[in-house]
Amino acid sequence: MSRALTLIDGRKDDRVPASDRGLHYGDGLFETIAVRRGRPCLWHRHWTRLTTGCARLHIPLPDAARVIADVERLLIGADAGDGVLKLMLTRGSGPRGYAPPPAPTPRCILSFAPGLPGHSTGAEAGVRLTLCEARLGENPRLAGIKHLNRLEQVLARAEWSDPAILDGLMCNAQGQVVCGTMSNVFVLDDHGLATPPLTTCGVAGTVRAVVYECADALGIPVTERVLRPAELFAARGLIITNALRGAVPVADLGGHPYPPEMVPAELIERVRQIALEPETHA
Amino acid sequence: MSRALTLIDGRKDDRVPASDRGLHYGDGLFETIAVRRGRPCLWHRHWTRLTTGCARLHIPLPDAARVIADVERLLIGADAGDGVLKLMLTRGSGPRGYAPPPAPTPRCILSFAPGLPGHSTGAEAGVRLTLCEARLGENPRLAGIKHLNRLEQVLARAEWSDPAILDGLMCNAQGQVVCGTMSNVFVLDDHGLATPPLTTCGVAGTVRAVVYECADALGIPVTERVLRPAELFAARGLIITNALRGAVPVADLGGHPYPPEMVPAELIERVRQIALEPETHA
Repeated sequence: MSRALTLIDGRKDDRVPASDRGLHYGDGLFETIAVRRGRPCLWHRHWTRLTTGCARLHIPLPDAARVIADVERLLIGADAGDGVLKLMLTRGSGPRGYAPPPAPTPRCILSFAPGLPGHSTGAEAGVRLTLCEARLGENPRLAGIKHLNRLEQVLARAEWSDPAILDGLMCNAQGQVVCGTMSNVFVLDDHGLATPPLTTCGVAGTVRAVVYECADALGIPVTERVLRPAELFAARGLIITNALRGAVPVADLGGHPYPPEMVPAELIERVRQIALEPETHA
Repeated sequence: MSRALTLIDGRKDDRVPASDRGLHYGDGLFETIAVRRGRPCLWHRHWTRLTTGCARLHIPLPDAARVIADVERLLIGADAGDGVLKLMLTRGSGPRGYAPPPAPTPRCILSFAPGLPGHSTGAEAGVRLTLCEARLGENPRLAGIKHLNRLEQVLARAEWSDPAILDGLMCNAQGQVVCGTMSNVFVLDDHGLATPPLTTCGVAGTVRAVVYECADALGIPVTERVLRPAELFAARGLIITNALRGAVPVADLGGHPYPPEMVPAELIERVRQIALEPETHA
């Protein structure tokens, strides 16, 4: 297995200035992107979310063609097969203090790590989840985007060490389920699929949107609504979505079992085809 | 003016590994410390807050004597007079993913910048504040400590560019005032001083606690209670506190004037004596 490779603003490097605002304040964004056969998956969706995040935080969006060229260089340099591409974009360096520099020079950090976890997991398998105690704070201006303030996810992820548990679901202060530390969640009931709104917290996953489209194509209604843990436990089935795994049926949430076969295999397969097959990003 | 100097884990360096969890997740803590005549002020209070933060985030606390020795080396190396010492402590580097490494090696980043802003500002002057639109999300597990997830403060600080405005006050989602982007706030009314509780958000400032003690010594009652903007505008006076400035009377909040002489000059002076005079930290 080759070592992880990093490009910082297009140069092969693995260190950033200690003055970077990503380090000081979490002042930046990131994307975690599946790479299949050396090419990034869902590139357009990741770039769109990054664009939304930049607009929200008033970070200048880098030139797309230049970032794409850097990604290609990185993946060729890494002799990449399947793996994980992480793109971090910070507001760059600045003088002391919270005030964003009037003309920031964002810093783009690209890294590739070989190995893609469990993308072959089919509908038959099903993953285990836990329900976390750590809550998500609410702030509409930070909701949906994938910013670098992720301490809540770190606290939540520290709640379990059992490697058989893939992810933990998190609630807001009102006890409404929002998403996993690294996934979005859908419940399947008699009416179709439902997933929590992400208007005050949570990350709008790229694969979450793919599920909407695939479910629509299969005639499965999808609604956004407030979901409490009790509704998850009462559901016929659960699905979680994640850029590295696509959509995966849940077999167990905190000891409560779900028959994974309740989740339409065709939905899982369609999502996988879109989420884990590289697209042309030029 | 000499350039800022940085020590990373005791070595003179100005770059950190791109794998640092402070950069990826804001997984760490910081302290901003006034330096007078080459010596840090309120060292014990800063160290105590860092200790609290480490306990809350389960980051191993570094050896105090070693950090103190590094601080002394940095300040001697910087030929430091008055200035600002920033201490960042991250959970260090780790593999991909939110899960904290079971045995992390925290990274300590010390930097010194010469020049201490306006510590000579006396009770007679008074500073200008604005009331920010950006809100603070609430999360009791992150409240009070000075962690590296500071995007909310960055968004708030971006709301004004007038250099005459020192800070902006921030409210939670219920519209209750919590603190400034880089300060705590006290109102002065007929009953004494009042300041918002920091149980769900905000940073428990080192000088905030000094105000409690000094007010007590002067027979001025201090209470913690929910404060709405209307109560701030109705108050006889306002004070903000900050490690680099001590306690400062507010002359203006969003265009609303306060007579700075309403704030007891003796309180301001007592706080200044404690907050901006270096203590022996051995």
